[in-house]
Amino acid sequence: MNIKFFSALLFLGSSVVFSLQAQNLVQYVNPMIGTAKMGHTYPGATVPFGMVQLSPDTDTIPYAVNGKYNKDVYKYCAGYQYDDKTIVGFSHTHFSGTGHSDLGDFLMMPTTGKLQLNPGTEDRPESGYRSAFSHTTEVAEPAYYKVKLNDHNITAELTATNRVGMHQYTFPKSDNAHIILDLMAGIYNYDDKNVWTFVRVENDTLITGYRQTNGWARTRTVYFAMSFNKPFVQYGSKKYDEAQVYKGFWGRFDQEHNFPELAGQKLRMYFDFKTEEGEKIKVKFALSPVSTEGALANMQAEVPHWDFDRVKRDSQALWNKELNKVVVDAGSKDDMVNFYTAMYHAFLGPTTYMDVDGSYRGLDMNVHKADGFTNYTSFSLWDTYRALHPLFNIVQPKRNGDMIKSMLAHYDQSVHKMLPVWSHYANENWCMIGYHAVPVIADAVIKGNADFDVHAALDACMTTARNNYYDGLSYYQEMGYVPEDKNGSSVSKTLEYAYDDWCIAQMAKKLGRKDIYDEFIKRSESYKNVFDAKSGYMRPKLSDGTFKKEFDPLDTHGQGFIEGNSWNYSLYVPQDPAQLIKMMGGKTRFAMHLDSLFTMDLPDKYFENTEDISRDGIIGNYVHGNEPSHHVAYLYNWTDQPWKTQDKIRMVLKAMYKPTVDGLGGNDDFGQMSAWYIFSSLGFYPVAPASDQYAIGSPAVKAATLNLENGKTFAVDVKNQKDKNVYVQKVELNGKLLNRSYITHNEIMNGGKITFYMGSKPNKRAGGRI
Amino acid sequence: MNIKFFSALLFLGSSVVFSLQAQNLVQYVNPMIGTAKMGHTYPGATVPFGMVQLSPDTDTIPYAVNGKYNKDVYKYCAGYQYDDKTIVGFSHTHFSGTGHSDLGDFLMMPTTGKLQLNPGTEDRPESGYRSAFSHTTEVAEPAYYKVKLNDHNITAELTATNRVGMHQYTFPKSDNAHIILDLMAGIYNYDDKNVWTFVRVENDTLITGYRQTNGWARTRTVYFAMSFNKPFVQYGSKKYDEAQVYKGFWGRFDQEHNFPELAGQKLRMYFDFKTEEGEKIKVKFALSPVSTEGALANMQAEVPHWDFDRVKRDSQALWNKELNKVVVDAGSKDDMVNFYTAMYHAFLGPTTYMDVDGSYRGLDMNVHKADGFTNYTSFSLWDTYRALHPLFNIVQPKRNGDMIKSMLAHYDQSVHKMLPVWSHYANENWCMIGYHAVPVIADAVIKGNADFDVHAALDACMTTARNNYYDGLSYYQEMGYVPEDKNGSSVSKTLEYAYDDWCIAQMAKKLGRKDIYDEFIKRSESYKNVFDAKSGYMRPKLSDGTFKKEFDPLDTHGQGFIEGNSWNYSLYVPQDPAQLIKMMGGKTRFAMHLDSLFTMDLPDKYFENTEDISRDGIIGNYVHGNEPSHHVAYLYNWTDQPWKTQDKIRMVLKAMYKPTVDGLGGNDDFGQMSAWYIFSSLGFYPVAPASDQYAIGSPAVKAATLNLENGKTFAVDVKNQKDKNVYVQKVELNGKLLNRSYITHNEIMNGGKITFYMGSKPNKRAGGRI
Repeated sequence: MNIKFFSALLFLGSSVVFSLQAQNLVQYVNPMIGTAKMGHTYPGATVPFGMVQLSPDTDTIPYAVNGKYNKDVYKYCAGYQYDDKTIVGFSHTHFSGTGHSDLGDFLMMPTTGKLQLNPGTEDRPESGYRSAFSHTTEVAEPAYYKVKLNDHNITAELTATNRVGMHQYTFPKSDNAHIILDLMAGIYNYDDKNVWTFVRVENDTLITGYRQTNGWARTRTVYFAMSFNKPFVQYGSKKYDEAQVYKGFWGRFDQEHNFPELAGQKLRMYFDFKTEEGEKIKVKFALSPVSTEGALANMQAEVPHWDFDRVKRDSQALWNKELNKVVVDAGSKDDMVNFYTAMYHAFLGPTTYMDVDGSYRGLDMNVHKADGFTNYTSFSLWDTYRALHPLFNIVQPKRNGDMIKSMLAHYDQSVHKMLPVWSHYANENWCMIGYHAVPVIADAVIKGNADFDVHAALDACMTTARNNYYDGLSYYQEMGYVPEDKNGSSVSKTLEYAYDDWCIAQMAKKLGRKDIYDEFIKRSESYKNVFDAKSGYMRPKLSDGTFKKEFDPLDTHGQGFIEGNSWNYSLYVPQDPAQLIKMMGGKTRFAMHLDSLFTMDLPDKYFENTEDISRDGIIGNYVHGNEPSHHVAYLYNWTDQPWKTQDKIRMVLKAMYKPTVDGLGGNDDFGQMSAWYIFSSLGFYPVAPASDQYAIGSPAVKAATLNLENGKTFAVDVKNQKDKNVYVQKVELNGKLLNRSYITHNEIMNGGKITFYMGSKPNKRAGGRI
Repeated sequence: MNIKFFSALLFLGSSVVFSLQAQNLVQYVNPMIGTAKMGHTYPGATVPFGMVQLSPDTDTIPYAVNGKYNKDVYKYCAGYQYDDKTIVGFSHTHFSGTGHSDLGDFLMMPTTGKLQLNPGTEDRPESGYRSAFSHTTEVAEPAYYKVKLNDHNITAELTATNRVGMHQYTFPKSDNAHIILDLMAGIYNYDDKNVWTFVRVENDTLITGYRQTNGWARTRTVYFAMSFNKPFVQYGSKKYDEAQVYKGFWGRFDQEHNFPELAGQKLRMYFDFKTEEGEKIKVKFALSPVSTEGALANMQAEVPHWDFDRVKRDSQALWNKELNKVVVDAGSKDDMVNFYTAMYHAFLGPTTYMDVDGSYRGLDMNVHKADGFTNYTSFSLWDTYRALHPLFNIVQPKRNGDMIKSMLAHYDQSVHKMLPVWSHYANENWCMIGYHAVPVIADAVIKGNADFDVHAALDACMTTARNNYYDGLSYYQEMGYVPEDKNGSSVSKTLEYAYDDWCIAQMAKKLGRKDIYDEFIKRSESYKNVFDAKSGYMRPKLSDGTFKKEFDPLDTHGQGFIEGNSWNYSLYVPQDPAQLIKMMGGKTRFAMHLDSLFTMDLPDKYFENTEDISRDGIIGNYVHGNEPSHHVAYLYNWTDQPWKTQDKIRMVLKAMYKPTVDGLGGNDDFGQMSAWYIFSSLGFYPVAPASDQYAIGSPAVKAATLNLENGKTFAVDVKNQKDKNVYVQKVELNGKLLNRSYITHNEIMNGGKITFYMGSKPNKRAGGRI
């Protein structure tokens, strides 16, 4: 650790004790991983769980072209695609790894030469403000990004605090230096996505305003304050709104030149400078969910200076602190990079959603104050309930509690009286299925990490589960399943509702509410209602009680499932694998089903046009690139062949996670893929959140120390670790033989050590017990 | 006074002392006056300076048809036209008397029978939710409106508090009773005026939401909370947005039926009831400029009950209190109606613009709190600086002070650092010309009604006057006039800037700022620069210093003037009539010019297509229906023929103000026309606000008592008052002969009595002095 880095850590105060032993782990993070193909990650600057994600966007793909959905947009969920040759600009908000998108607010681009306000095209970047660039000039680190913009001869550097993005542009000598602020640009943009834009040029260094969009979030407004370290010489704008008959009295002004108050749907601005050779122009760009006043206060609180390097240093220290929560010896450098990049991706979201004073705009569009907690947004819950939030319960328990408080605040503000499904920026976007805030809450309650009103939380879970107009839920409640002829993807919904209901039951049991337990444990068995014993698969059932006739368990299209086929989804009974195995013909037959999953061939036709499933994320018919199968490899633990979990896990870790730009087997899904990697690398995995058990797999690391917030440590020690030694011979917990295939949450949180003894051959003697 | 009315007044507490002597003056107000032709008044329910103006709209005229401006829209500035046969619904915001428009928010309509969500057409009201009605069933009083909706057999009654509109609908027996909430409707509507709408059905009696528009106010959002006294049976909505490719995940819901969260550009809602014969369904509808939370708090604070009659009674008592500020014996009942309807119209605006807790959205779109004052909006200053605000300095001094504080807050929030020009709802709409907040502020300072930071106010006035991109002001400052070839309506602008500058000079003098006085007294003489001695008229000058060649002093089109011709506008030097008279050839010649004004004929072609000038408002070539001539009849006082002021004033009072629906000679212009009536009826008029003098005219009343807020009274006693006795024989102030043609502000505010002795022949002996 160098002196500078050490001082930065000291500066952080509360982290001092911890940081004295902190290692420089930031060096292992490579934010470029996942930026090619379908990882949907972004390479830009952000702090852990930060509100600002300041990152380059490499194209301006619209959601629709000529009124038709444009498939290409899917590649640009995070704004950046590694294969692209140009950078359009740097925008301030990005999702990490999502499978649908939004954001990309406030795109900035420094240029030189002729002023151009249109972005131009990739093949002719000189036709607009965008620039060609080369990856050789690119540096991507946590909270830092750097690139040379070749067409403009400008080096752009980015860093960020929680709520402020900071740009540092090194210009050549130029009388024609510009900074473009494109207020029309956005991710998953389409005509009329921009609902309204409002801008004030407060003085010759400060601009404030907001952008209101109707996208994935239907009613979303983000406020900003933007400050230059040097006055601009002049500025201007162009409005691209449809021509309106009504002009109003604003027409008396020349609004395109040096006019300080602008409003409309579609707006681009520019600020002109004269620069010396090597002159750095810096921009601070603060966001707020509440007001321009809030954005300005955020800027003043978080970056009350112009020291770019200091921001970078402080923010990287924040990252190092978080990364040090798990200190591993992963083996090779590549494995270290894989591990800490997974940690990095796991800590990108949910994102902070409140001003420094705790104010945020709620689901009811009123301004609320987070009382004693950090309010978070961007809950990709269908993904993250599986492993990310369970990971947080171990290494980010305080934050996970605050995330649940944020969900409960969402519930309180929801006119539907529903917990979040997929929510971002004071909006429910309703993406995917289920009510998977429930397992997150139940998991925290079961694991004793419930610093919130648990009875109110139980009420919120029940009320959510009893909604009678949400996505087939009335049929489910009435008939015990969602009938496919009434509501599509019916089997996926039935299975996931059943699991969520089991979570409510577990929570109710813990809280002594037998009445609730009885109701929901009964609902949790609904998965049985869509099991077709004849075919041996979960199968869509119609409202007349018969199974749908046409049925192909391999196909992901129109078979009653969402982003999956029956072959995979039939395995989705995480709450009771033993019962599932029984239904599917017993342990041996079930294990054969699992075997086939990994070895058979799934032709393209079965998943083409299904977003979030691509060849890169598939092994046989096992779809690791998407979530419904994430627990599947661990199910061998419930058969007599647990060693197959072990070799499968090691295979998946190798095959689906590589330290390369195209290294991710699918969308990272806001950290869920990464959380799977972290758990599985450490040797255990939460098959059923809201249970206190973690299934034993096969650790990939040599050693690890979990530095817990309670001050204790939990060590993972792996004896005889080698690539080929994928089989666990025995496991000791605190030096005593572990005679079962799981460890419990308390065993981790109480601190101690788990020791894995590895070998190249399965230890079959232990049967279902290791 | 009946007992009930008396108790209501007692209930008001602070007004008790005053109200003991209060007369029932509400009886004389007829809100229907001005609702036909071009008065642009509305007949609905509101309290003095109230935020809510709940009033019927009789048509849904769009601002544009097929992309072309629709001239007919002008008639509907206040939503209601007396000649119309149908009522579309009742909306909650209306301007009174304006010559351009906006608002008409949240149109409600009760219906029976088949549910219809479109308004239908006037010729076939049954094709939509609107209804035929007859004026015979109509009752319009201050704070109360009633009408029978014939097509639905419903009696609708409306009342209002400051921030809450209350509806009472008496239904027939029906299983098919509906209340429509049209969130697309609006005044001066056009495609895309609705920017966004957001609605939550909180429960079966409460709805909240907001409407954001881009109209005369470019970025305007109004929030609401709406409460029924009885749960609806079911509800629904229809969205009229353009089809979008992007649907989002909301598509999983049937949003048209009983779905509680709606958002989009264009939305209509309905709420269904079953009603018994004669059943009253009541609705409270609260507004807020800040949030739905604010609207709800406003409702709870102002109408915490369901007693419609109590609201009506309390609000009428508020009106009576305000009307009692001037107690007159106007002579006939008609004259009483004219006088108190003028008082009523004068007290409709500016309107309250803050929640009960003082919060309001400012020009910067941030939420501000009015600290120790009531924040007002809707400043139609080009009109109201002339007589309305001077009237307020006498009878509403506290409110006028708060209005100025509101203007100064506007200035503080203005990125242009400008005082309001024409502002409403946190927006500057820039309507008309000049910077006439200045005379309002200066008038208050000169008259000693300046309970605000006068030096900050002077700064605000100067900074406004020095803006270098506002409407020809840079030329004006540089060249001493606005050149017509650079900026149209140049003469009007030059003349009005000059007057405003004189106001700054007066204010500076009073505040001991000689530097400022010198600068602005010089600027105030700029009127001389556009006077063409050769033609004897104010005339457009070009940037090369020559007068524009083609010139017709009668034409209102393209001659360098706005809403006026040179014949009238040449008289606009209110700050120095003596000098003007000199320039125009002396007293005799000037008087002849004035004579000709009232007697000559102005052919239609000279003013057709000039909004706000119509035949009804014209006497000869004197255009009383519009503001620039309002001081003109008083100018005889500066000649040797002051008696001509006297007969002209009496003539104008008779000709331009009648107690009939079409009784106003032009737009009331938010009370300016009415304020002229009130002043002139009382016998004096503020020719030059920011002077402390009121020119003596000819009183039309028999007697009047001004009940001043300082506890004093100023009485007007008119001896020998008759229709034909229009000539003042002599005037006594407190029993002593007044040997001049004006009285001063202090003479009024100190209390006392002015006695006019009238006769049928001019008393010419007094010459320029009465």
